[in-house]
Amino acid sequence: MSLKGACIIGQSGGPTSVINASAYGAIKTALDSEEIAKVYGALNGIKGVLDDNLIDMGAEDPEELALMKYTPSSALGSCRYKLKDAEDDETDYKRILEIFKKYDVRYFFYNGGNDSMDTCNKISKYMLKNGYECRVMGIPKTIDNDLAGTDHCPGYGSAAKYIATSVMEVYHDARVYDTGMITIIEAMGRNAGWLTASAALANIGGNGPDLIYLPEIPFDMDTFFKDVEDIYAKQKKCIVVVSEGIKDKDGKYISEYGSNLAQTKDNFGHSQLGGLAAYLANVVKERTGAKVRGIELSLLQRCAAHCASQTDIEESFAAGAAAVSNAIAGVTDKMAGFERTVENGAYKCNVKLFDLSIVANTEKKVPREWINEKGNGLNQQFIDYALPLIQGETQMKKENSLPRFVKLKKVKAQ
Amino acid sequence: MSLKGACIIGQSGGPTSVINASAYGAIKTALDSEEIAKVYGALNGIKGVLDDNLIDMGAEDPEELALMKYTPSSALGSCRYKLKDAEDDETDYKRILEIFKKYDVRYFFYNGGNDSMDTCNKISKYMLKNGYECRVMGIPKTIDNDLAGTDHCPGYGSAAKYIATSVMEVYHDARVYDTGMITIIEAMGRNAGWLTASAALANIGGNGPDLIYLPEIPFDMDTFFKDVEDIYAKQKKCIVVVSEGIKDKDGKYISEYGSNLAQTKDNFGHSQLGGLAAYLANVVKERTGAKVRGIELSLLQRCAAHCASQTDIEESFAAGAAAVSNAIAGVTDKMAGFERTVENGAYKCNVKLFDLSIVANTEKKVPREWINEKGNGLNQQFIDYALPLIQGETQMKKENSLPRFVKLKKVKAQ
Repeated sequence: MSLKGACIIGQSGGPTSVINASAYGAIKTALDSEEIAKVYGALNGIKGVLDDNLIDMGAEDPEELALMKYTPSSALGSCRYKLKDAEDDETDYKRILEIFKKYDVRYFFYNGGNDSMDTCNKISKYMLKNGYECRVMGIPKTIDNDLAGTDHCPGYGSAAKYIATSVMEVYHDARVYDTGMITIIEAMGRNAGWLTASAALANIGGNGPDLIYLPEIPFDMDTFFKDVEDIYAKQKKCIVVVSEGIKDKDGKYISEYGSNLAQTKDNFGHSQLGGLAAYLANVVKERTGAKVRGIELSLLQRCAAHCASQTDIEESFAAGAAAVSNAIAGVTDKMAGFERTVENGAYKCNVKLFDLSIVANTEKKVPREWINEKGNGLNQQFIDYALPLIQGETQMKKENSLPRFVKLKKVKAQ
Repeated sequence: MSLKGACIIGQSGGPTSVINASAYGAIKTALDSEEIAKVYGALNGIKGVLDDNLIDMGAEDPEELALMKYTPSSALGSCRYKLKDAEDDETDYKRILEIFKKYDVRYFFYNGGNDSMDTCNKISKYMLKNGYECRVMGIPKTIDNDLAGTDHCPGYGSAAKYIATSVMEVYHDARVYDTGMITIIEAMGRNAGWLTASAALANIGGNGPDLIYLPEIPFDMDTFFKDVEDIYAKQKKCIVVVSEGIKDKDGKYISEYGSNLAQTKDNFGHSQLGGLAAYLANVVKERTGAKVRGIELSLLQRCAAHCASQTDIEESFAAGAAAVSNAIAGVTDKMAGFERTVENGAYKCNVKLFDLSIVANTEKKVPREWINEKGNGLNQQFIDYALPLIQGETQMKKENSLPRFVKLKKVKAQ
């Protein structure tokens, strides 16, 4: 089973507060191992492999490197590069194999979301087909929490904690005046409502939103107006949290209703959304005459490492570490995800391996039974699921009372 | 000098992360004093006085009340009610005097910004003129940091810490891809650029913005385009922080350039601004063809108590406490602000009293000599000024790893 050689670690897709905790878990475990001779970081994910743009992780100062655990975003750089199917175009795969051979790479770890697991899967299949022994493992990350199989995704707990905390704070801000006020907060989540749902955690202490709309439920503008107006009439305040990805019954994004919103598509054909909060704030203002404020949580929700969940940080680290230790033990073609057990009433999270082919390109949605009957809020089942994931405060290092993020030397691989 | 009687504490204007720390400093000191028999909170500021809507702060559970120190926004509620000049219309003043007499109020503490100091000043003058002995003290708050006299304002340090931290995090997020990216972040600050300037603190660790535009410097669109394009050409990334209040040389708000932005005015005649980041992002995108993202920090910057500066919290508490202890000692018609001393190279902040008439309705701007020559960034003098204000992490109580904010019983005064 023993396989000696180098490894490459790459990061892909949109960053999170804790994706570097996972990468660091993998890098540290690889550096500490006997089987893995050299640990390379691919700059900007698979593009770094294609461009022979690798850095030597062993050349970094270990103390500095450890700061990766608390640094948001992808310290190695990311990409949204989609590998074609090898049957259609083998060019990229040949190049990857060439680089793997050049550096004697026998382990490939890819840290990303659905699309990244797809990349892992394709590379693994190609290497197997071409008789090049290489163990390929996926390390999940996504604030969207939409990967199939795993109980939850590294990155989600931290984003959820930031969203719940921010909504609680806005709740207090939005009711200081005795005049009416409607606040519409937009969270990320293209097709799955996990991030938006996390605002429901703010309700535990009674500082939460009145209405939550997820993309899982078709959004009806008239029902929405009625929901808001009913609450506003009663309490003169209404806090709404909406997912950027809410769609009407015909599948049209509500954010596309606003004519002045430019829509573009990324390399995977995903629409780039945004501006929904401003759009809904405008229409609600016109309709009700109330003071309405739209707030877009924007990038902050995926990079607010200062408000990360320490549980999420430790689990993310563990996923990265487990990917490497399992690969060394002979495992390949798996993603290191999580399963949850409850022991004596307490949440416990264990790393569990999932087939890449199951994970790739499948999206996990919020179950209908966790959403209230009206489709405008979450119930206790969601709270029970999400609350353990946001526990603990980040142990981030500070300098001048500001975050001290990692600074890598990025020594080019020879 | 001894004056026995009740006191009223009210809060006014836009909330901050720490305005309740000040109010709690005042309430606790008043509750602990021998001279002050009853401590009343005015709900929604001076409107609570006019409407006889007072609560008995002594009826609150002391442990719960102590949570005010870490709860954002105005726990007593706020207002934007402007008192007319007594010469023009005495109605409100007569009513205030009536309420003061009803509850034997001999101390009035008002916690707010410029407009609130104006309210204090007017009430104090009226009471003096009408021979009603009442000591009136202002307790400053404003994230805008624009009050005259005082070295800095309670609330600024926390907002500055949040802005600097968030910009550092966005910095990392905005450079994960090797493709070009321009990010435009909008901070609050109508006429004074203190909040926007605080983004410069992110540069200490090398994770800060490339360009910062304050309302103190007339904004020229062509110079702005050139600044952005020069940086973008060099490094393919550019992070810009702009104040919502930037104006062109003719005094027109840049946010008004966008035709689709509805502008309304509040009761004090201030324009309600917003949408600037989105507007600038659009024009920069059109001009450069680059990927551009606009981020509005919105309400979060004034309510993000989870990222408050403990220095700011303690100073805010001290200002509230000093207002009460000074009033008991015979002082009236003053605002409890700060002066800074440097002892053995270390920052020290002392409470200093300022005449209300000096403070009211004057705005303190960022000095020109703290802004770089080009007018698109801050220099070391600003850093030296602002850095001590953001020191220390909040000691906020958590429950379920989320903030545990105060819940007042609000027992109506009899």
